[in-house]
Amino acid sequence: MIKRRGTLFVVSAPSGAGKTTLCREIRLRMPDLAYSVSVTTRPPRPGEMDGVDFRFVAVPEFRAMLDRGELAEWATVHGNLYGTRARSLEDALALGRDVLLDIDTQGAAQLRARYPDAVLVFILAPSVKDLEQRLRERRSDAEGEIQRRLVRAREEIALWRRYDYLIVNRDLKEALDQLESIIVAEHCRTARINLTLPDLEVQN
Amino acid sequence: MIKRRGTLFVVSAPSGAGKTTLCREIRLRMPDLAYSVSVTTRPPRPGEMDGVDFRFVAVPEFRAMLDRGELAEWATVHGNLYGTRARSLEDALALGRDVLLDIDTQGAAQLRARYPDAVLVFILAPSVKDLEQRLRERRSDAEGEIQRRLVRAREEIALWRRYDYLIVNRDLKEALDQLESIIVAEHCRTARINLTLPDLEVQN
Repeated sequence: MIKRRGTLFVVSAPSGAGKTTLCREIRLRMPDLAYSVSVTTRPPRPGEMDGVDFRFVAVPEFRAMLDRGELAEWATVHGNLYGTRARSLEDALALGRDVLLDIDTQGAAQLRARYPDAVLVFILAPSVKDLEQRLRERRSDAEGEIQRRLVRAREEIALWRRYDYLIVNRDLKEALDQLESIIVAEHCRTARINLTLPDLEVQN
Repeated sequence: MIKRRGTLFVVSAPSGAGKTTLCREIRLRMPDLAYSVSVTTRPPRPGEMDGVDFRFVAVPEFRAMLDRGELAEWATVHGNLYGTRARSLEDALALGRDVLLDIDTQGAAQLRARYPDAVLVFILAPSVKDLEQRLRERRSDAEGEIQRRLVRAREEIALWRRYDYLIVNRDLKEALDQLESIIVAEHCRTARINLTLPDLEVQN
């Protein structure tokens, strides 16, 4: 019998690397994966649903959560506040469920400090040209916003070595296979396994 | 562009855990994986081919290889000598090819010491009962041989924590998926990646 605590998978990427699509698709492939919905003060984009894509809150509500120590990580990104509620995260892990978190590099660093056994995955577009193209295809952002995201992307990309894994998102199917493999492989890591084999009389 | 040296994957298991089948099937799935054919002094089993399953040699020839320092690891298992030629292994790794090695726990420990970045995978049958059943189904071994293999299996199983990954072989398809995931995931590990992104102007 193999018993384990859930594993926390943290996915970060510069805007336009395809992180949101990857995280959505991996949840379809691996329905047991719990997904932590981030809290944010940024306004919803067209099509985004409260409680599904994000929990959208006003700034005073976010600050209150922060003051009550309810957030496992938080960050300011492009002038908006983002955070993760600790309680829902830790409840899922304690029940043995894996949790997927889609957050920026600041939040990832905080989670690494708080949960040293978290698995950090960085998603990269094949090049800045690809990244810029994907940002433009999104069409929801103005030119100034696109330029701001590109500057920030370069800053974030420089941090890839702090992550455990790197996925270069050339092709959605290949990138998804890699993300799935990382999750499956981490389950097989002996460091994460608390093994009891009574009929093998193994003393651990 | 991502450049890398090949990675050495070392698979160990007690007799009867299904290691040989797994290693054969994974090579069918991943034909780029180089497979290092071990040298052994044990006689071929029915159906085994020289140079494919093993390189079968006489004891003096094995001793000569050992004296010339040609073996990256070697061990005595059930009274027979087994070894891996260092040259073919290191040539493949230098060319960027991954290498799969199917060896016992003694050899794996030697390879870990010689190649600290090797990935060690341990395969386990679900229980000793399953293991015994698989050994009997093989039919090529006499009862004394089966008992000897079971004793040794228990000794080997106690060593699983020295490995990076553990696969419990309940189901061939599932075990194969896990082995493939481990290989794919290790390719994404930042510690193995030497990344150059000139158009991202990243300084590493």
